Amino acid sequence: MFESAELGHKIDKATFDAEEPALRQALLDVQSELLERAKFPVVILIGGVDGAGKGETVNLLNEWMDPRHIRTHAMGAPSDEERERPPIWRFWRSLPPKGKVGIFFGSWYTAPIVDRVIGQTKGAELDRALEEIVRFERMLTDEGALVLKFWFHLSKKAQRARLTELEKSPKTRWRVTDTDWANFERYDRFYKISERALRHTSRAEAPWIVVEGTDARYRSLTVGKTILESVRKRLDEGDRHAVASIAPPVAATIDDVHLLRTLDMTTTLSKKSYEDELEKLQGKLNLLTRDAGFTKKRSAVLVFEGADAAGKGGAIRRVTGAIDARQYAVVPVAAPTEEERAQPYLWRFWRNVPRRGKLTIYDRSWYGRVLVERVEGFCKERDWLRAYSEINDFEEQLDRHGTVVVKFWLHITKEEQLRRFEEREAVSFKRYKITPEDWRNREKWEAYERAVADLVDRTSTEIAPWTLVPAVDKYAARIQVLRTVCDRLEAAG
Amino acid sequence: MFESAELGHKIDKATFDAEEPALRQALLDVQSELLERAKFPVVILIGGVDGAGKGETVNLLNEWMDPRHIRTHAMGAPSDEERERPPIWRFWRSLPPKGKVGIFFGSWYTAPIVDRVIGQTKGAELDRALEEIVRFERMLTDEGALVLKFWFHLSKKAQRARLTELEKSPKTRWRVTDTDWANFERYDRFYKISERALRHTSRAEAPWIVVEGTDARYRSLTVGKTILESVRKRLDEGDRHAVASIAPPVAATIDDVHLLRTLDMTTTLSKKSYEDELEKLQGKLNLLTRDAGFTKKRSAVLVFEGADAAGKGGAIRRVTGAIDARQYAVVPVAAPTEEERAQPYLWRFWRNVPRRGKLTIYDRSWYGRVLVERVEGFCKERDWLRAYSEINDFEEQLDRHGTVVVKFWLHITKEEQLRRFEEREAVSFKRYKITPEDWRNREKWEAYERAVADLVDRTSTEIAPWTLVPAVDKYAARIQVLRTVCDRLEAAG
Repeated sequence: MFESAELGHKIDKATFDAEEPALRQALLDVQSELLERAKFPVVILIGGVDGAGKGETVNLLNEWMDPRHIRTHAMGAPSDEERERPPIWRFWRSLPPKGKVGIFFGSWYTAPIVDRVIGQTKGAELDRALEEIVRFERMLTDEGALVLKFWFHLSKKAQRARLTELEKSPKTRWRVTDTDWANFERYDRFYKISERALRHTSRAEAPWIVVEGTDARYRSLTVGKTILESVRKRLDEGDRHAVASIAPPVAATIDDVHLLRTLDMTTTLSKKSYEDELEKLQGKLNLLTRDAGFTKKRSAVLVFEGADAAGKGGAIRRVTGAIDARQYAVVPVAAPTEEERAQPYLWRFWRNVPRRGKLTIYDRSWYGRVLVERVEGFCKERDWLRAYSEINDFEEQLDRHGTVVVKFWLHITKEEQLRRFEEREAVSFKRYKITPEDWRNREKWEAYERAVADLVDRTSTEIAPWTLVPAVDKYAARIQVLRTVCDRLEAAG
Repeated sequence: MFESAELGHKIDKATFDAEEPALRQALLDVQSELLERAKFPVVILIGGVDGAGKGETVNLLNEWMDPRHIRTHAMGAPSDEERERPPIWRFWRSLPPKGKVGIFFGSWYTAPIVDRVIGQTKGAELDRALEEIVRFERMLTDEGALVLKFWFHLSKKAQRARLTELEKSPKTRWRVTDTDWANFERYDRFYKISERALRHTSRAEAPWIVVEGTDARYRSLTVGKTILESVRKRLDEGDRHAVASIAPPVAATIDDVHLLRTLDMTTTLSKKSYEDELEKLQGKLNLLTRDAGFTKKRSAVLVFEGADAAGKGGAIRRVTGAIDARQYAVVPVAAPTEEERAQPYLWRFWRNVPRRGKLTIYDRSWYGRVLVERVEGFCKERDWLRAYSEINDFEEQLDRHGTVVVKFWLHITKEEQLRRFEEREAVSFKRYKITPEDWRNREKWEAYERAVADLVDRTSTEIAPWTLVPAVDKYAARIQVLRTVCDRLEAAG
C-alpha cells in the first residue's frame, strides 16, 4: 500500500507558490459554505510514521483554513474519566458537529496498531479491533460524516535521514526523543502491521489516503487538495449522496404468532409476596452495587422500553430505591437537543455512559430509532435497518469494557393500556402523564408490536439480552425487573 | 446557629405516616410543573456532620420525587480533568438546567471547610473562599436558580451515640470507618469552623437551613416540606421574583473625552518591520507555549473583542499560527445553543476553559453581556450591571488557578469600518463576512463606544487587564497583540 509513497514525490517552490493562494482561498470558501449549510461534519484522521510531517500538516491546515471552525484533538494518554469508559468514548465526545471540522491527531487506530507493534496483543485481537473500526466508520459515514484518513509515510531510509537531520540543528534537536529512535528500530514491524491495518480498513466510504512525507510542499498540497475536493464534492452532491436502500424488506410474520403474543400476560403476584420479595431483592441489589467487585471494576447500563403506561417509571423507581443516589443517573429520553441533533444519533447516549462504579438508567433509549422513528417514519428505512447492527456494536463496546447491559421491554395488552389511560385521565394529578400523542401511538399498536418483535430478534444477544416483562400485573413486573438486574450483576461478578 | 438543631426534635410514626403521602404527591406535582414551565433550576446542597442522615435524605428525595429529573452529584475526589481547571469548574459542569433538580452531595463548601479544619489553610483564606461562594451563589440566584442549602447537624453527644450504634450491628458496621472516628475527634473544631462558614454565607437569596439529624422522620419531613414550599413559592411568584433595579444609572461622560478617543489611531508599521517582528514574536510565542513552565503548570485564555471588521480573525490567526494546533482551541461565540440557554450565561464559557498546557481563544466572549446585550437591550439593565463583577469573579478564578487571562479590544474608526465594509462587499469571497446585522450595529457606534469605555473601567484589573489595540493599521495591531501575549506568558513564568 505504501509503494507510491516511496517514489520521491516533490513539488518545486515555484509551483507551490503559484498554487497555494488559490488553494487557501478555495479551502476558506468551502469551509464557510460547509458552516452555513451545516449539512455534515468533516472528520480528519492524521496517522503515520514519525517524522513524516504530521504535526506540520495539522498546523498548516489550521493556518490555511479558519481555525475558529476547526477543533484539533491531540489524542495522548486518556484522562481518568476516559479510562473508566469504553476506549471509543473519548472519540465520541470529541466528534465535530455538523458544519465543523475535527482533526484527530492520533485516532482510534493508534492504540490497536501500537499495542500490536509492541507485542501486547495478538494478530486476532488486532483484526477484531480493525473490524470494529470499519463498523464505526461506516456508522459515521452513514450518519453523513465525511471521513478523511491521511497516512503519512516515509521509507525506512527517509525516516533515518529525517531523524538524523533534525538532530543536527540545535533548533530542532529537541524534537527527536529516545522514543523516536526506539520506534525506528521497530520500523519493519510497524510497516507490516500498519499496512495490514490500512488494508483492512480502506473502504469505499472512508478510504485511506497515503501521503509521502518527505517533501513538505508535496504533502501539504496533496492534503490540502484532497480536503478541498472531497468537501466540495459532498457539498455539490447535496442529497444525492444518500444511497438508495438496498436492504431486503423485513419479513412480516405471515401468521398471527409472534413473540409478544407468546408472553403469559396473566402472571400475578400477591401484595404480600411482592412486599417480601421487594425487600429481599432491594437489599440484595444494594449489596451488589456497593460491593468492591462492582464499584472498582464495573458499571451498568439499564434500558427501559415498553408501551406507554406499561409502568416503566414505577419499575425504575423500585430499582433506584435500592441504590445509593450518588451511584446512579436516570436519563429520560425525549426529543434530542440542538447539540445532539448535530451529531450521530448514538452520540447522546454515549455522552451519558457511566464511569466505573456507576449506573445509568435510560428511560427509553437508542431503541427509539427502531421503534418510534421506524413506526412513525421519522427516519428512512435504510437508517433504521442499519441501526440494529450499530446498536449491537455499541452494546458490545460497553460489554467488553465491563459495563453490564440490561434491557427490559415492559409489555401490557392493548385493553390494559386503555384501562390505564382512562384511569389516568380520571385522576387529576396523573393527568399530565397522558398526552394526545399517547392516544395517537395507541392507534399504531400492531406496527409497534411488529417493531418490538424485530428488535428482540435482532438485538437480543448473549452479552445484552432482552428481558420481556409481562406488566399487566405491576407487582410481578417489578419483581422480575429487580431479580433480573440482580442476576445480571451477580453473574458479572 | 446550631442551637435549634440540638433540641431533640422528633416526629412520631403516626404523624409521619399521616403526612408522607400528601407530601410525596405535592412534591411530584411541583416537580412536574417545574419541568413543564422550565423557568428555573433547583440547586440543592447537602452538607453537615457525618452520621446526621445526609445520604439517607438524598436517597429519600430521589424516592419521593421523580428520579428522572433529578441528578445527584457525589462530589468526591476531583478527576484529573477537573484538577487541571479552577476548583469551581466541576460544579459549573454539573449545574442542573432550567426545569431540573441538581443535588450536590458535598459542595463548594466542602473543600474550604475541610482544608481549614485539618489546618491546611488559614482563617483569612477561609474567609476569602466564603466571600467567593457568596458571590457565586448570588450569581446563581440572580440568574434565576433556586438555591437550597441544607446543613445536617448532630450534637457531639448525638454523633458519638450514632457512630457507636452503627458499629454495634453487623449490618451497619461497614458504614463506620476510621476516618469517621478521626473526624469525631475534630468535632469541636469542625463545629466552630462550619458555624463561621454558615454565618458568612447565609444570605437572603440563599439562606442555610439547619436540620437536626437525630430523628429520621423529623429531618425527612423538614427537608421535604422546605423543598416543596420553596419551589411552590417560586413557581407562584412567576416573574414577580425579579427584583426591581436599584442600581444607579451608569454615569455618561458629559464631555466628549473618553478612553477610546484617546487611542492613537494613526500608528503604523511598515511591511518589512511587520514581517521581521512577526517572525521573531511567533518564534518566541512558540517557545513560550512549549516550555515546561507553561505545559506543566499553566494554561491561557485569550479574549478577542472589537468592532465589526476590526481584524479579530486576522489577529487570531497570527497567534494560532505560532502555536501547535494540538494546544489551542478557538471558540467562536455566536448565539447560545438550547443547552446553553438553559444555564447561567457564563456556563458556555466555563465549559471551554482549557486544561493544563492548553489555550482557549475566544473570538468574542462573555463581554457580549455588557456589549451587544446591553446596547441592543437583549438583557435588563440590572443584569448587565451585575455582569461586571461576575466577570471579574470568573477571571479571578482563572487567574488564581494559574490560567493567564489576556483580553484585547481591537479598535478602528467609524470611517475605517465603512471603508472595510465596502471593500468586503466588493470582493466576492469576502462577501459572506458582511451581514445586514453588521450595518445595523454600525448605527449604534456611539452606544458601543460608551459600553466599551465602561467595560474597560470596570473589568480591566491587575490580573486581567484590557489591552486596547488601535487596529486601523493591521500590521501594527497584530504585532501589538502578539507582543502582549508573549509578555503576559513570560511574566507568568
